[in-house]
Amino acid sequence: MTPHAEPDPQAGAAVKAADRAHVFHSWSAQGLIDPLAVAGAEGSYFWDYEGNRYLDFTSGLVYTNIGYQHPRVVEAIQEQAGRLTTFAPAFALDVRSEAARLIAERTPGDLDKIFFTNGGAEAVENAVRMARLHTGRAKVLSAYRSYHGATSTAINLTGDPRRWASDTASAGVVHFWAPFPYRSPFYSSTEAEECARALRHLEDTIAYEGPATVAAIVLETIPGTAGIMTPPPGYLAGVREICDRHGIVLVLDEVMAGFGRTGRWFAAEHYGVVPDLLTFAKGVNSGYVPLGGVAISAEIAATFDKRPYPGGLTYSGHPLACAAAVATIRVMEDEKVVEHAAHIGETVLGPGLRALAERHPSVGEVRGLGAFWALDLVRDRETREPLVPYNASGDAAAPMAAFGAACKRNGLWPFINMNRTHAVPACNITEAEAKEGLAALDAALTVADQHTV
Amino acid sequence: MTPHAEPDPQAGAAVKAADRAHVFHSWSAQGLIDPLAVAGAEGSYFWDYEGNRYLDFTSGLVYTNIGYQHPRVVEAIQEQAGRLTTFAPAFALDVRSEAARLIAERTPGDLDKIFFTNGGAEAVENAVRMARLHTGRAKVLSAYRSYHGATSTAINLTGDPRRWASDTASAGVVHFWAPFPYRSPFYSSTEAEECARALRHLEDTIAYEGPATVAAIVLETIPGTAGIMTPPPGYLAGVREICDRHGIVLVLDEVMAGFGRTGRWFAAEHYGVVPDLLTFAKGVNSGYVPLGGVAISAEIAATFDKRPYPGGLTYSGHPLACAAAVATIRVMEDEKVVEHAAHIGETVLGPGLRALAERHPSVGEVRGLGAFWALDLVRDRETREPLVPYNASGDAAAPMAAFGAACKRNGLWPFINMNRTHAVPACNITEAEAKEGLAALDAALTVADQHTV
Repeated sequence: MTPHAEPDPQAGAAVKAADRAHVFHSWSAQGLIDPLAVAGAEGSYFWDYEGNRYLDFTSGLVYTNIGYQHPRVVEAIQEQAGRLTTFAPAFALDVRSEAARLIAERTPGDLDKIFFTNGGAEAVENAVRMARLHTGRAKVLSAYRSYHGATSTAINLTGDPRRWASDTASAGVVHFWAPFPYRSPFYSSTEAEECARALRHLEDTIAYEGPATVAAIVLETIPGTAGIMTPPPGYLAGVREICDRHGIVLVLDEVMAGFGRTGRWFAAEHYGVVPDLLTFAKGVNSGYVPLGGVAISAEIAATFDKRPYPGGLTYSGHPLACAAAVATIRVMEDEKVVEHAAHIGETVLGPGLRALAERHPSVGEVRGLGAFWALDLVRDRETREPLVPYNASGDAAAPMAAFGAACKRNGLWPFINMNRTHAVPACNITEAEAKEGLAALDAALTVADQHTV
Repeated sequence: MTPHAEPDPQAGAAVKAADRAHVFHSWSAQGLIDPLAVAGAEGSYFWDYEGNRYLDFTSGLVYTNIGYQHPRVVEAIQEQAGRLTTFAPAFALDVRSEAARLIAERTPGDLDKIFFTNGGAEAVENAVRMARLHTGRAKVLSAYRSYHGATSTAINLTGDPRRWASDTASAGVVHFWAPFPYRSPFYSSTEAEECARALRHLEDTIAYEGPATVAAIVLETIPGTAGIMTPPPGYLAGVREICDRHGIVLVLDEVMAGFGRTGRWFAAEHYGVVPDLLTFAKGVNSGYVPLGGVAISAEIAATFDKRPYPGGLTYSGHPLACAAAVATIRVMEDEKVVEHAAHIGETVLGPGLRALAERHPSVGEVRGLGAFWALDLVRDRETREPLVPYNASGDAAAPMAAFGAACKRNGLWPFINMNRTHAVPACNITEAEAKEGLAALDAALTVADQHTV
């Protein structure tokens, strides 16, 4: 149970009116949205001005890995604000160095230099710039069913419909198909077959694009918003081997999957793969202050030892953001948040979601690990036809909207993307909270079931 | 006088060693830099671990418009951190609405909808996306001698050497020449002639690019890092008229010039021009927490009323950043920081810098207003040959390095770009501090004078 303020609908109405007057929202038709006015949040919950409290199964946009308002991180922000809230990037600062050290100690392999940005999109932008300059090549390969951010290069790398409107050129970006056993692009019937065919497809694509033209392959270690498709065993190792053979930089995007989400510090650890560049944001400080970055291998860092790295930003290594990262990482260590995410996935979320799948014909597949799960909802388990079409909106998306409304009636704020709902709560969600969420999903899936054949 | 901690060189050495081990710096050859370890900052000063204190004539990277550690803004950050440090962008929040309202009330004309980003580059990225979708056109014109950020579209719009390494395509970007009477690209002999010729050059460029292919013209209202070239009277009004005639969106980039820097809330006010989109960052909250954004006209906002705006980011309208903006804007109102910037420019900085120019042959021109000034340093006042060549480095840049070292010896931290030094202190710098800075510049210019013919 979390404390929340007395209901105050009048204050809520004023907040919403002020929002509608002046705030232009992300990814929205401004005249058609009705944003909920939020009064507060703590741990895994938030509440509105009407007296409604929600269990947040989205952890914001999959970023509040330690939940809302963790007192130790709040205190660290307050302390740093009183000491030195901002300072330009060209200087050495204790908290900037310490954040870089704590991150570098956790990133795999020799990814020991940290370039800080404000978020994930800028991290991807800079990783691509590093890869292009390191290799002297222009092209970058990325996967369909992916999201990498909304600045120009990042959105062009993205393999979901959010790319289309901004895809004025796709200069240098080539999309390929990554493995997805449940909806295989390769007509495979086993995970091993999917892996082998996906690697061959990537090899062939590189061969026809010209290996010497490809600077980097950019992949989410486990694609997030696109559907939490855990790669089959051997796939990422195979990609690593292909990159090595052709001198291609491997960029693993762990903006969403990193910092404990999968039950490891970084998802790459599950697969024994070390990328050349690793992008992060979100979980690094649970978004308490905007922060992202790139962890850089020794070899790529050396490229910019004598030659200036031609990229930067005013708030690179922002002290307040770094202080939040230092405190967040220490909290995650001390409270064993990463281990907890693994445990809650293995003992509660995984088994619980699979039990829902047995009861509900609308659940086609359960995928994930840690605090990172997707339910792939279908009209028909046999054909695997999605519950709503790809990129549906309006009436065509009504079954998912009905499912979402049912979740909210049951006190759960759901993550919904196309025909999927993701169970992506805070990584330190308690067992009781996780079970509360599963019960709410159980009730809401009954609504989704009504749309199956 | 500002308090500073006891010298502690050992602690400073540790901070620097930790920095060199793990921090990858913006715009730098990582093996050739020797970043100063900074121990603290307050108001217009910062200090290192060796007992040296510097008057900051850079205000960070021209962003701490209210100086370092303003107690009211620090307190507002601490208060908001304790209340709700982060929340996802799809919701209405009191502090997000209030920040948007305070900004919208200050932006010119009908720029009343605010899309929040983490910084200036993302603001420019989104402004260009809005302009392209609003017009259905692809091309964007921007000026040489400009800086717009380091993400793909922003860096391609940039008209300084930082673009070159990332200029893999320049998809849709066309550069033109903006007016610069002191180094006229148009062989003009008066400001009026420079203005007329610059407008004709822009008209001609649009005619040959095809007016119906041009989505936007992106201009810094007063170019910042490129040299603080205040546009001649009538130029921006002329650009506005050209845009209106051809249905081109006018984007004014006020990331550096906005929020009091020029002695007005926005530099556009000096010229009586209202853009269709205005980008901001830096001064909006003095960078105490990363924040930027786009102020959007009613007409462009209406384009995304029923049609979703296809752009966004996790930290759009970040509560902690918005709280810092609300407090910063109130401080600027209550303490008349904008008026102060105008006054200090008119009464101290402007006259003081012009007096330096009279005494020092290395000063070719003094340009600026408010807390936004450039000294254009030359080898030869007659030929106006720059003190160092365009984009010089190493030995070729030695005269500027010597000038910079002399500033630091005199307790002044200077802003240096190519052959220029900019006097861009906090907008609330006191008269005494400004005079202290002028005296340090006076001494350092003697070093620059030795490199004149």
